[in-house]
Amino acid sequence: MKQINVSTGKPYPVKIGHGLLSGCGAEMQGIGLYGKALIVTDDNVAPFYLKKAEESLKQSGFAVFSRTLPHGEGSKNFDELVKLINFAAECGFSRSDTFVALGGGVIGDLCGFAAAVYMRGVHFVQLPTTLLAAVDSSVGGKTAVDLAAGKNLAGAFYQPALVVCDLDTFATLPQAEYANGMAEVIKYGFIRDKELLSLLQRPFEEEEVVARCVQSKAEIVANDEFDRGERMLLNFGHTVGHAIEARSGFTLPHGQAVAIGMVIVTQACVKNGLCPPETLDVMHKLLERYGLPTAAAYPMSELFDLMVNDKKSSGDAITFVLPRETGRCELKKLTRAEWTALLS
Amino acid sequence: MKQINVSTGKPYPVKIGHGLLSGCGAEMQGIGLYGKALIVTDDNVAPFYLKKAEESLKQSGFAVFSRTLPHGEGSKNFDELVKLINFAAECGFSRSDTFVALGGGVIGDLCGFAAAVYMRGVHFVQLPTTLLAAVDSSVGGKTAVDLAAGKNLAGAFYQPALVVCDLDTFATLPQAEYANGMAEVIKYGFIRDKELLSLLQRPFEEEEVVARCVQSKAEIVANDEFDRGERMLLNFGHTVGHAIEARSGFTLPHGQAVAIGMVIVTQACVKNGLCPPETLDVMHKLLERYGLPTAAAYPMSELFDLMVNDKKSSGDAITFVLPRETGRCELKKLTRAEWTALLS
Repeated sequence: MKQINVSTGKPYPVKIGHGLLSGCGAEMQGIGLYGKALIVTDDNVAPFYLKKAEESLKQSGFAVFSRTLPHGEGSKNFDELVKLINFAAECGFSRSDTFVALGGGVIGDLCGFAAAVYMRGVHFVQLPTTLLAAVDSSVGGKTAVDLAAGKNLAGAFYQPALVVCDLDTFATLPQAEYANGMAEVIKYGFIRDKELLSLLQRPFEEEEVVARCVQSKAEIVANDEFDRGERMLLNFGHTVGHAIEARSGFTLPHGQAVAIGMVIVTQACVKNGLCPPETLDVMHKLLERYGLPTAAAYPMSELFDLMVNDKKSSGDAITFVLPRETGRCELKKLTRAEWTALLS
Repeated sequence: MKQINVSTGKPYPVKIGHGLLSGCGAEMQGIGLYGKALIVTDDNVAPFYLKKAEESLKQSGFAVFSRTLPHGEGSKNFDELVKLINFAAECGFSRSDTFVALGGGVIGDLCGFAAAVYMRGVHFVQLPTTLLAAVDSSVGGKTAVDLAAGKNLAGAFYQPALVVCDLDTFATLPQAEYANGMAEVIKYGFIRDKELLSLLQRPFEEEEVVARCVQSKAEIVANDEFDRGERMLLNFGHTVGHAIEARSGFTLPHGQAVAIGMVIVTQACVKNGLCPPETLDVMHKLLERYGLPTAAAYPMSELFDLMVNDKKSSGDAITFVLPRETGRCELKKLTRAEWTALLS
């Protein structure tokens, strides 16, 4: 088991290891939580892990309630948020009680946002069951729901009190879901961890790789909790990726879109002499190794307007994350003209 | 003009004086705001003050958008919140832009919550136009919407970047609305400011009284931004008051309910020797002077369950604010049995 501490305004531990789910109640008790716990999960995860989580919490003295939502991005909306909050109120949850997210990024984002706003904030625990959630969304406190006008348009920065990542839960992940997470793992390598990229070229120890990514995220988030600077590095591949996701009508999975986004930006940087060609080679090889795509079917000209609607935009310029060498990226604001010039 | 600085995690100034609305744009510019501004107001306030606010913002270079909602608590819900957020997205608001609340407590709570969650937080400015908003809701960062299960059940602690209170806007307040605010003013006297109670026994200077209340609120909020201790003193009269409001089907105005709540708790404390009878005399006189009621039509036995659903409850006990002498209150957790004993 590895533990990483995240030093945000409200610091918290992330525990990573095999077989941790059956001890999650004790971990929660260990950091001083008590009373009622609302486990939020989805219908993919519930059959495998809900009972185990419930039992662990009950053993540690929690009064356990649960809500199982339909899986997928479609549940990440205000309707489900309001239902969740009304449910908690009906069950008599008070400000000293706890919401627990058991699942992937959608469940973590929705449950975290509900925890952030229910009575202006209750305790929140993340039990990620996907690689993507483990290395990315469960750490750092970004929570949100989607709106008609865009993804993640309403949300909060709200740190969990504890993250317990049981690596055994990845065993039931569909291969495509695992690949989704690998896109984010590979991203950490390119923005700040060249050694991680070497590890990924061979069969690897999951605990080591996940912990390495969480350590990167913890350091970045501690320096920039509210996403005004360094944290934007985590958006490498995401600005273009989000536009590709939107253009696909959200049929393309997030990780695949991010993979394509990283390639497009890196290609442009290589072409303009901003980044050595080897970086692109390494990227192509790793993405292919983990079953991720490296090209999109949409012309770039269609994507800029979609990017302007993204949160990373400020006025008419967009902050891009540009690779400068393998393991180092830079933030740069580009106007539409500058972006077009970079691509052409 | 008086200025009070609120030393929360993100400190901000509160400016109080006559004729300040026409200078609100310059004040916003002065603290570094720029870009787009979304003024949120209601159909009571808009005819009097929206144009003035818009012109001031335009003069200071802001691109101004506005949304006028139906007045009253009925607008403080998730539907209006979602509409507001979608509207901002359609108008292309980014994280560097600003939401401006022009109105009373409902507008401030709703607009503040929208500002807190839109793209996980944009700048927020309060332009209170009611006495209640000026002395209470516009300062301290409590934002919220109501849910089926209860008032203010979802919200955020989100401090404004600036509060500009133009006392001239009180001129158009209906007398009952002004009395609502006076209930909160009187509350400050009983929880921590005996001198204020003397001022209120004669015709008073509004600027002085409002500034005095804001100063009290600023000190309390700086000590306890997230409402875990001292800040609960501000709930004097509110725990019983909220239950009375709910019992009336929200036909009784907030200030009247709080007035009755303060009297009920003070009566109980006097009866049990926890508080001298003079405190109750002073309270009765002041509430009557400002047209506020001092008794409710509902039996107390009906109110406890409504109070348990209130946010101040933790488990089955409720934290009450009990007066101990004129100008000093204390927090005390009471079970149903203890509360019943206190009342009988």
